[in-house]
Amino acid sequence: MKRDPMKTAVSWAEPGKVLVRGYRIGDLIGRISLGQAAYLLLAGELPDAKTGKIIDAILVSVIARGPSTPGARAALTVVDAGAPLNAAVAAGVLAFTRFHGAAIEDCMKVLEECVGMSLDPFEAATEVVQRYRSRGMRIAGFGSKMAEDDPRVTRLLEYAREIGIEGPYVEQLKHLQRAASIVVEKNLPLNIDGAIAALLCEIRFPKQAANALFMISRVVGLVAHALEAQERYKPLHSADLDGAEYDGPPERAF
Amino acid sequence: MKRDPMKTAVSWAEPGKVLVRGYRIGDLIGRISLGQAAYLLLAGELPDAKTGKIIDAILVSVIARGPSTPGARAALTVVDAGAPLNAAVAAGVLAFTRFHGAAIEDCMKVLEECVGMSLDPFEAATEVVQRYRSRGMRIAGFGSKMAEDDPRVTRLLEYAREIGIEGPYVEQLKHLQRAASIVVEKNLPLNIDGAIAALLCEIRFPKQAANALFMISRVVGLVAHALEAQERYKPLHSADLDGAEYDGPPERAF
Amino acid sequence: MKRDPMKTAVSWAEPGKVLVRGYRIGDLIGRISLGQAAYLLLAGELPDAKTGKIIDAILVSVIARGPSTPGARAALTVVDAGAPLNAAVAAGVLAFTRFHGAAIEDCMKVLEECVGMSLDPFEAATEVVQRYRSRGMRIAGFGSKMAEDDPRVTRLLEYAREIGIEGPYVEQLKHLQRAASIVVEKNLPLNIDGAIAALLCEIRFPKQAANALFMISRVVGLVAHALEAQERYKPLHSADLDGAEYDGPPERAF
Amino acid sequence: MKRDPMKTAVSWAEPGKVLVRGYRIGDLIGRISLGQAAYLLLAGELPDAKTGKIIDAILVSVIARGPSTPGARAALTVVDAGAPLNAAVAAGVLAFTRFHGAAIEDCMKVLEECVGMSLDPFEAATEVVQRYRSRGMRIAGFGSKMAEDDPRVTRLLEYAREIGIEGPYVEQLKHLQRAASIVVEKNLPLNIDGAIAALLCEIRFPKQAANALFMISRVVGLVAHALEAQERYKPLHSADLDGAEYDGPPERAF
Repeated sequence: MKRDPMKTAVSWAEPGKVLVRGYRIGDLIGRISLGQAAYLLLAGELPDAKTGKIIDAILVSVIARGPSTPGARAALTVVDAGAPLNAAVAAGVLAFTRFHGAAIEDCMKVLEECVGMSLDPFEAATEVVQRYRSRGMRIAGFGSKMAEDDPRVTRLLEYAREIGIEGPYVEQLKHLQRAASIVVEKNLPLNIDGAIAALLCEIRFPKQAANALFMISRVVGLVAHALEAQERYKPLHSADLDGAEYDGPPERAF
Repeated sequence: MKRDPMKTAVSWAEPGKVLVRGYRIGDLIGRISLGQAAYLLLAGELPDAKTGKIIDAILVSVIARGPSTPGARAALTVVDAGAPLNAAVAAGVLAFTRFHGAAIEDCMKVLEECVGMSLDPFEAATEVVQRYRSRGMRIAGFGSKMAEDDPRVTRLLEYAREIGIEGPYVEQLKHLQRAASIVVEKNLPLNIDGAIAALLCEIRFPKQAANALFMISRVVGLVAHALEAQERYKPLHSADLDGAEYDGPPERAF
Repeated sequence: MKRDPMKTAVSWAEPGKVLVRGYRIGDLIGRISLGQAAYLLLAGELPDAKTGKIIDAILVSVIARGPSTPGARAALTVVDAGAPLNAAVAAGVLAFTRFHGAAIEDCMKVLEECVGMSLDPFEAATEVVQRYRSRGMRIAGFGSKMAEDDPRVTRLLEYAREIGIEGPYVEQLKHLQRAASIVVEKNLPLNIDGAIAALLCEIRFPKQAANALFMISRVVGLVAHALEAQERYKPLHSADLDGAEYDGPPERAF
Repeated sequence: MKRDPMKTAVSWAEPGKVLVRGYRIGDLIGRISLGQAAYLLLAGELPDAKTGKIIDAILVSVIARGPSTPGARAALTVVDAGAPLNAAVAAGVLAFTRFHGAAIEDCMKVLEECVGMSLDPFEAATEVVQRYRSRGMRIAGFGSKMAEDDPRVTRLLEYAREIGIEGPYVEQLKHLQRAASIVVEKNLPLNIDGAIAALLCEIRFPKQAANALFMISRVVGLVAHALEAQERYKPLHSADLDGAEYDGPPERAF
């Protein structure tokens, strides 16, 4: 079978050379962080200073959330079977679904739709919320396992404001929350997917790569939890995840 | 079945709180990079300034190496089947083996063994190389698909020297290369796994987490190549990976 | 967190006992085939004689189709990286998508819809085909990589007739093919998914388990191709899959 | 890069033709069972009648063992995350390790070693057991989560005897059990891996494909448990696997 050559603009290697989006890898080593490099790979260009900062902040915000998230559970179950680290990580990644870590893109679409309606933001939000509700669909970005007060949301939005990342999407997010809460008649908390979505809209991050940011960062958490379990427990020890306990350093100041 | 509670010191979540190695997540957002956070998760403590820099440099050095590496091939093959992003990434991660991305830990062991022998470094290297050879085993960290001149190796070691990360392991690595080349009677190039191994020894990074650094970083490359292929090609298009071509930005200065 | 107990009717183990859908495993060993046991697990009851035969025939029909199918390609790529058998099989399974092995359930739905319309079968088929076409959707079960003459389709339908499995769904399938061919103005061949779909409708097999039959059987093919490659090739040998050649026994009579 | 063509003797497809080990697929459909076809793919030839029977019996014996095995746990965890069936099956397959389902090959090696020693079988067993013990290694095939009385072992060996599959390896297995029990000073029960290993030795099944039989069969169990959980529970319902309950048909006669 004759095939077209696969073409790529992402990265390239030939003897004596590795290019990443046109940059020689040697020019990047020591000059940009992993988060900035991830932005380069996904968005195609180096981030400006503010963008680089918010990307690292977003990535750090979702790096781990305990051993009981679906991804960590899957990874730890496979570790318990005696499998190698990469098998555990693969299983964890397979547990990333639209119910776990993949609502960022959907929320970006809703925000773009609202902002694009050239209406008062609260009116736009109300119209969109009612349309979703009439179709039995949920608005991504609200409601949370973390309950009402997710410290990641608060801090991420605060940090964005500190470095000057604000604008119509962050504004719209608040109206969306208010409109959704009125329609469902209870206070719907903003979740971390929603906060990330608004910030990614502000920096014009490509929507189709948005959920990938969660994946990239959370892999670090999967790896760390899996390695710890490999060191602490023998295969088939089957420690109880539902009754998991924290025995790390007590809460400490940065 | 009654089970022990699983205990973890890595990360923890409860209502209103997420802890990472004892730090509140809100204290980390905006203050550390993803690479530094990865170090915190894997090594248990925040890195000092030099350590944080070298970790980011190491992570950036292996972030992507074209569409033809085993990991990228696996991910792109699964994308071509029409599968979602996380399935492609999982397949890519399954292709990380001791032949691809998992030689760092092994090379760290060799370096530690040599340094621990209290011999002249070249003598230590020669003794270890001969022992490995007599058992038909390869020394990890040498020999490369990139041919003799891997720009990542050169730049990573140069950058380490610039920021003051030097010492017995980097020194030992050179003697190991010379000893191995003499024994096999050809010039054995140092590869990226070897360079990373020596630097991780210098900063006392936990050996069992060393290969995980490759995994964490290369996932970014897998994601970027997979997303690009999803956008460019329809399922079952089967573009030819063996004849892949680069069509990204021409080589450009940083 | 207090959780509901997971309840299962599929299989159960306790000291001295393994139950499969209520049967003691010892009563099944030596009395039913793997195919019949798969039916028991998926449909909940032992198959009658005809049903057991057609299930085995269906399973055998899709057991392997060369090294170039998406599933085999993914598995072989991961083998080439030097990974263990189960990692290769996992990658292969991840390449089973609605474009590859998962159209049986969709075709069953179309057939049930047509048969349920209480119209002349050709009229029902025409109406459904036009509705799908007006929405830009394809009818599952037609069109094939195998070109017009898939020997599996012919033989499977012939065998079904021999053992007396015929009825409204097999009949409807032919009308559907004719209607679809007229609407798209070219001869649309029936593919193996379509043939299997009609037979599963005839035996009232649960639709949501239909695609699983493909998965169960094709895993055998993945395993066999992966094991062969592990024996024949060293890791990173990277034999060319696009130029693959058959060197097995010459075509032989059963 | 110029590559060798990949060569395969397993299966092959070209327009109008699918070959499996040289047989036209149409000649196999309706004539052999899935188990016999699996033997053909893995061993290269059609099984004779006795061999076909024992292969199906072996496959049926390990098809499922409740929702708490490592493989089922991994699959069910990924289902709970809301992932599709193939992701769940892939995670389950990744939990097949030498601690779970992959001891058959190792036990075959021990049996072959003993039989090859041209000693009295009990003496051979004692010598091998003592050698393993002195190296701190376990003998595969003994010891079981099922406790002392695994009904699968009893029935499988009984069935083998009924159809005339007996010989030096089954004999050796008993001596190995006795020798191992004496050396460790407690009664070591034979497990299902051990029973299967002896029978595969008797029929000269290729060792390197032995563990694959477990994988092929258990995938059926994974699929059935995963599909049931998808139907019964919503994503993130997180039913408690440790407190799982059986609610299927009461124990019933075949």
